[in-house]
Amino acid sequence: MVFVTFEGIDGSGKTSLMKALAARFSAQGQEVILTREPGGSSLGARIREMVLDAKTEGLDARAELFLFLADRAQHVATLIKPALDRGSLVFSDRFADSTFAYQGNGRGLELETLETLNTVAAGGLAPDVTFLLDLPVSVAMARIAARKGEGEARFDGLSVSFHEEVRRGFLTLASRFSHRIRVLNAEKSLEDLSDEAETLLVSVIRGTYAGRP
Amino acid sequence: MVFVTFEGIDGSGKTSLMKALAARFSAQGQEVILTREPGGSSLGARIREMVLDAKTEGLDARAELFLFLADRAQHVATLIKPALDRGSLVFSDRFADSTFAYQGNGRGLELETLETLNTVAAGGLAPDVTFLLDLPVSVAMARIAARKGEGEARFDGLSVSFHEEVRRGFLTLASRFSHRIRVLNAEKSLEDLSDEAETLLVSVIRGTYAGRP
Repeated sequence: MVFVTFEGIDGSGKTSLMKALAARFSAQGQEVILTREPGGSSLGARIREMVLDAKTEGLDARAELFLFLADRAQHVATLIKPALDRGSLVFSDRFADSTFAYQGNGRGLELETLETLNTVAAGGLAPDVTFLLDLPVSVAMARIAARKGEGEARFDGLSVSFHEEVRRGFLTLASRFSHRIRVLNAEKSLEDLSDEAETLLVSVIRGTYAGRP
Repeated sequence: MVFVTFEGIDGSGKTSLMKALAARFSAQGQEVILTREPGGSSLGARIREMVLDAKTEGLDARAELFLFLADRAQHVATLIKPALDRGSLVFSDRFADSTFAYQGNGRGLELETLETLNTVAAGGLAPDVTFLLDLPVSVAMARIAARKGEGEARFDGLSVSFHEEVRRGFLTLASRFSHRIRVLNAEKSLEDLSDEAETLLVSVIRGTYAGRP
């Protein structure tokens, strides 16, 4: 039915918002599928493992990109498309915009090439709406430090300037795809963010959404 | 130094020719690196496993393609390019032409898209020369039946018409890239094939190769 993605740097609160929003729609009897990338399919879980493992043994940037795209292709074909077809809401924690922001802005691969590759991987599927949770990198890092030990080791391995670059990448995508990407101020409370996202999503579902205000 | 790929359907004798040829050049004191796709890097070995495993649980055609491309990116960046840079001959059992023939002709993905994706994965690297071992599918199948139990289970799972399509795909590539691909009659003896391939390869190394006769 409607495909919604949640994007932002680590520590932006994507996952919390996604779960809170899912609880609201489920409570109204709507089927909501929660998934994520990388790792949303059984193949994806193995790919996610490989990418994390390979950090230490020097994974080539292009190899990493193609692994994420393999995950996306399997994810779309076996989970997302079938769920949308049977009328479900599908919420994904990261999707194509993460590829553009991390592999493009973060690692210097060309954006047009990434878009072409992504279109093949996603079989032409794009999100109906994307919530971009935006906040300063320093705030995100402080949050991650606070929940240390929860498997968020990756962030630590990458520099602040890398994450600044990724944040900038997401914001550029938001201006480019302004009809689809809604920027949320991730420093707001979860309650406020959920209200804002719910209102917008209801209008998307009703077909009355007319792009960002 | 010189990058050589060996292509053809399973049972065409690629691997035997590659090894025989490598023995000849090694005997002359030339460093020769033998590798293969999928599986030429340590990441590749894991990817190869996943592709074979996943057959049973329904691997999406595009996901399979991107896994092969991830393998290629890692393979080129970590093994092939460094070996070529230090003056080695590099022989690969399958490379991009297998992607074009299997994923394109075999599974119906568009050739131009595959070429674009491959160029990204291979970082622009193309073989200096490719030996295409051509023979009738029935002969290849008989050879495989004769060495049954050597882990060639995949072939059996795919139809004869699939392999006919792949063979046709390889021959189309050979006309399209006639400056690079040399078609060998794989029904000839290994001795004859090695002589023919050696002569051609020597001329490529000396820089006197002027395309197929």
